[in-house]
Amino acid sequence: MYSFKCDYSEGAHPRIIKALTQSNLEQTEGYGEDIYTQKAVELLKQRIGSDNIDIHLIPGGTQTNLTAISAFLRPHEAAIAAETGHILVHETGAIEATGHKIIPVGTEDGKLKPFQVKAALEAHTDEHMVKPKLVYISNSTEIGSIYNRGELEELSRFCRENNLLLYMDGARLGSALCCEESRLELSDLAALTDAFYIGGTKNGALIGEALVICRDDLKEDFRFHMKQKGALLAKGRLLGIQFLELFRDNLFFELAAHANKMAGLIRDEIKKAGFGFLTYSPSNQIFPILPDKVITRLEKNYGFYVWSKVDADSSAIRLVTSWATKDEVIAEFIEDFKKAL
Amino acid sequence: MYSFKCDYSEGAHPRIIKALTQSNLEQTEGYGEDIYTQKAVELLKQRIGSDNIDIHLIPGGTQTNLTAISAFLRPHEAAIAAETGHILVHETGAIEATGHKIIPVGTEDGKLKPFQVKAALEAHTDEHMVKPKLVYISNSTEIGSIYNRGELEELSRFCRENNLLLYMDGARLGSALCCEESRLELSDLAALTDAFYIGGTKNGALIGEALVICRDDLKEDFRFHMKQKGALLAKGRLLGIQFLELFRDNLFFELAAHANKMAGLIRDEIKKAGFGFLTYSPSNQIFPILPDKVITRLEKNYGFYVWSKVDADSSAIRLVTSWATKDEVIAEFIEDFKKAL
Amino acid sequence: MYSFKCDYSEGAHPRIIKALTQSNLEQTEGYGEDIYTQKAVELLKQRIGSDNIDIHLIPGGTQTNLTAISAFLRPHEAAIAAETGHILVHETGAIEATGHKIIPVGTEDGKLKPFQVKAALEAHTDEHMVKPKLVYISNSTEIGSIYNRGELEELSRFCRENNLLLYMDGARLGSALCCEESRLELSDLAALTDAFYIGGTKNGALIGEALVICRDDLKEDFRFHMKQKGALLAKGRLLGIQFLELFRDNLFFELAAHANKMAGLIRDEIKKAGFGFLTYSPSNQIFPILPDKVITRLEKNYGFYVWSKVDADSSAIRLVTSWATKDEVIAEFIEDFKKAL
Amino acid sequence: MYSFKCDYSEGAHPRIIKALTQSNLEQTEGYGEDIYTQKAVELLKQRIGSDNIDIHLIPGGTQTNLTAISAFLRPHEAAIAAETGHILVHETGAIEATGHKIIPVGTEDGKLKPFQVKAALEAHTDEHMVKPKLVYISNSTEIGSIYNRGELEELSRFCRENNLLLYMDGARLGSALCCEESRLELSDLAALTDAFYIGGTKNGALIGEALVICRDDLKEDFRFHMKQKGALLAKGRLLGIQFLELFRDNLFFELAAHANKMAGLIRDEIKKAGFGFLTYSPSNQIFPILPDKVITRLEKNYGFYVWSKVDADSSAIRLVTSWATKDEVIAEFIEDFKKAL
Repeated sequence: MYSFKCDYSEGAHPRIIKALTQSNLEQTEGYGEDIYTQKAVELLKQRIGSDNIDIHLIPGGTQTNLTAISAFLRPHEAAIAAETGHILVHETGAIEATGHKIIPVGTEDGKLKPFQVKAALEAHTDEHMVKPKLVYISNSTEIGSIYNRGELEELSRFCRENNLLLYMDGARLGSALCCEESRLELSDLAALTDAFYIGGTKNGALIGEALVICRDDLKEDFRFHMKQKGALLAKGRLLGIQFLELFRDNLFFELAAHANKMAGLIRDEIKKAGFGFLTYSPSNQIFPILPDKVITRLEKNYGFYVWSKVDADSSAIRLVTSWATKDEVIAEFIEDFKKAL
Repeated sequence: MYSFKCDYSEGAHPRIIKALTQSNLEQTEGYGEDIYTQKAVELLKQRIGSDNIDIHLIPGGTQTNLTAISAFLRPHEAAIAAETGHILVHETGAIEATGHKIIPVGTEDGKLKPFQVKAALEAHTDEHMVKPKLVYISNSTEIGSIYNRGELEELSRFCRENNLLLYMDGARLGSALCCEESRLELSDLAALTDAFYIGGTKNGALIGEALVICRDDLKEDFRFHMKQKGALLAKGRLLGIQFLELFRDNLFFELAAHANKMAGLIRDEIKKAGFGFLTYSPSNQIFPILPDKVITRLEKNYGFYVWSKVDADSSAIRLVTSWATKDEVIAEFIEDFKKAL
Repeated sequence: MYSFKCDYSEGAHPRIIKALTQSNLEQTEGYGEDIYTQKAVELLKQRIGSDNIDIHLIPGGTQTNLTAISAFLRPHEAAIAAETGHILVHETGAIEATGHKIIPVGTEDGKLKPFQVKAALEAHTDEHMVKPKLVYISNSTEIGSIYNRGELEELSRFCRENNLLLYMDGARLGSALCCEESRLELSDLAALTDAFYIGGTKNGALIGEALVICRDDLKEDFRFHMKQKGALLAKGRLLGIQFLELFRDNLFFELAAHANKMAGLIRDEIKKAGFGFLTYSPSNQIFPILPDKVITRLEKNYGFYVWSKVDADSSAIRLVTSWATKDEVIAEFIEDFKKAL
Repeated sequence: MYSFKCDYSEGAHPRIIKALTQSNLEQTEGYGEDIYTQKAVELLKQRIGSDNIDIHLIPGGTQTNLTAISAFLRPHEAAIAAETGHILVHETGAIEATGHKIIPVGTEDGKLKPFQVKAALEAHTDEHMVKPKLVYISNSTEIGSIYNRGELEELSRFCRENNLLLYMDGARLGSALCCEESRLELSDLAALTDAFYIGGTKNGALIGEALVICRDDLKEDFRFHMKQKGALLAKGRLLGIQFLELFRDNLFFELAAHANKMAGLIRDEIKKAGFGFLTYSPSNQIFPILPDKVITRLEKNYGFYVWSKVDADSSAIRLVTSWATKDEVIAEFIEDFKKAL
């Protein structure tokens, strides 16, 4: 039984395991002040092409979101997010638990556009309502779509004109950036957002997300917030070593490109067979709509989520590929898919 | 330069690294629902000797404390802690950030006694004050002392008679239990406390603490609290594999006993040389009081914290040993210490 | 310029002012332990017909909502509310500021039905999402509609079957209960909800809401929560004296019935003139849809909110009447309305 | 039985009741946007002698403290307060409930001095601890002492040099300023603190405290915070009318001076009789130490709190006088006191 349920089914890329093994008995400072974390931060700054950013390594995505957003907002300020946004749906009220409302915005494709954010702003008129202050976007989104350069520039411009912070959840940033149509690089993100994070967990690391704070007035005292929220690991080296390995050459992007390629092979085949998709997704999560009986047959050999009922006889499923998905598994799945029709 | 600064200077015990390597490419479920975590939980229940407990694996200590305490208390309820307590001093207000006051209690040795808790109770008389509800203790404490069986039984009895929850921070629980004078076992802790955690990070794991919830009415929905506080790792297996390795034989206790033994060798030598200690500590953290010039000489070859000035010419330092401290390092340190006199 | 903007434009009913004056120089205990508050609580219990309830007098509505809801919920639990619900829209994130998410439910008439609550429940499947626990309803609602007996019974039954708390915001409860079609009395509310409040501020008091806690396990330590949230007035007598006056005879209901009657006179006239309403409202808030030019003419002599644009030439306005609205003002308004056509 | 328990035993000064009565049926805007509140704010600015301050009227003291402090601090920042400070002891963890730790400082007289604040600063060295940011003082303090000009100037200077906010809880500010030795005026407070409040409830108002925000960067969006914390009354006029009456002539200070004078008469008599005091207090709260048998005799006719046991045979009691304490009551009490000896 092979699982397409998620991109965190395996451990870490073997090179990461090797790096952890090799450094294992060295003594280092605690709490992210070790030499590996320092090197990783320097390396990331180079790769992002900016020295005017702060970078913090944090164990997980929910933790990164809640630490950053609660540090950035004052008590009466709120985040705006797509109705499908991870912080809105799948983090058990983590943001609200730090005191902040999230304003939900309905979207077609999981992406926020300026006109939608504008409508949310206009609906909040005075002190009887929260003050919208931060725009939360995910890239790629929870339903596989991605922001291209034009879209992000437009949203960024709107946010700056309206004194809104733009925060990008990059749990699957590797996959997003490796889509051809994205035309965005890390340096663009540093220029266009106020903060974003580079997801390690879903792209080959055991754990770890790299939060990049671009805007000066958001940087102050950030390690206090991390410690308060439990996001400062005693053995911070665990994060440093991993990001050092992912970024010392092109590994991070190679892994993401591989995941995208694997999803693309399946997508093409399903398209060829005449089936549609719930959403347009060029990334490593795809949502094909298949006859229920086909789904039942596939479920015998593959693990995946049935996402939503589409009509009496068919449903959308979610297939997620990863850095660890092998070419031969995809080939086999495609064979099985054809047989299941 | 060898560091005695802390017990989290190295990575993980080699057996843990090996276990992570061997399981690395297996696919598992996410968020702690994987087979390794399940096995680790079952194993821990056996080792604790109870089936009537819930066990959750959490990345770090501050996170465990804040997730547990905020889950256990209602908004008006407060924790009582020794003035030296980790949650009071060194967690950047993590508990207060979840809304709860901590009532500080001055102690001589970092340990809470019933009469001190009683005084705190009696000082809180009505609804204009917080309601003391949870007694937080660390074992071993932040200054190296440990609770023995009699002390813990007495405190436990007092808490139950006064409707107080007893919570034990076990960041260094291994070291505490491996002190001969402790006469406590894991099964005793399950009987005497309402919740406690078994610290992995400071005893050979890369990261990871095992929270044990003993009292039934504290168990409900605990995974919701974990997710909300960012304590649910996508690759929960990372924690499961480590605890499985630490507890499948006696490794956990062997590592702690080794750390204690190493500290003991230094302690004996310093005592023999006629010096005293800031606190009585049978565990892996010791606080010898040494002439400042001796300290200066030792600092050339060893890393450690100067804890507090004791008089014009001498200070207390903190030396921490660990599972990774080698016998030859101790021998060398003792030589260097003698030369430094 | 007469204002129909709200039902809190004037001070208090003259009998309340008189009662405050007469008792003014008596010495009483502080913080709601005075004789007036005690008597008011006893009286309210009689009027509600139950001894098995706890009653607390609180200065304002937002404060009542935030104190009660944060006291009733554990950190991971959420409230469900209509999208128009006051806590969701007009309390500046007061509930989220205490750590709890509010799950919005779209409705046609501002009222929650079991099927809608059921859908919200079904969408929350596991610990990655908040746990819906409390159903928040307002009666009358923010758009003037009211729950009748059948509707409340049905919703109450659903909540009990699904282990949900039912909480009623009664800022305008007097007006709701005095609608003929309501067929609900205070005693019904105590039987059908877990907690509700009787709004004083919008029905003749200077300030003050009486929170009624019906469910036993929500009662414990409630005064602690009040004090913590700043809801315990030093001169609690100010609240006690007012509720005593409102309920020592039928004053509370007479005031509400008067407000409804005044709104009804306008409603009938507007209907007669052939205009429709944004929502069906039998209470003291009505939302007629009028030609913009009529609105412009009325605005010369009357204050009111233009609620929403309905089409190119007409808008809905909100007219609120109160205990203090005089018959002659209504007569005059009706004349002016006819002239404005 | 006459009560010296507190200064909020009676209602309001008769002039306030009269002002409320006279304005009662006028229509005004809600939520503090009424003409009375606007006039009161203008008047207070004149009396304070500054136009560069923001003033907000808030129902109660705990609410003022929690709204202001949570608005002023970022999540990792803490308040420093004397161990006797109201926010630390008697507000049921209201500040912690908004997420902030309070650092307690032991004092002899309830007042903070720069050297004590300095020690608290020096004890907080890095991101593992909270960051001290706001110094909370009460004037008069909870034990009757007051800050004189020199003391406040010194503390203010220290705070500015160390980037700390200085916040003064003025629940009993009138009494403090009316002590001869104070030599402080409202204008001094605006110059020396970053925010302070003028207590109405304990000096003749029914409810109401006037928060004065002096520092520019603390002013932004404050009404959002008020609404979120339930501190924005629908009938805000209730607060405006009262402060207008208290400050349109010298009433506020006359009431406070009277309370001080009444306490002074008792103080002098007790001193004359040879008894000491727990603390030095020139304000309206005094803490004489009396033989227990004298206390028992006084308790027959007077209500007051026995504050603390001093030795086997004597205790300190707290006597509080107010604007409403009549000269003849004091005369009688002095007679009774002499008889009780």
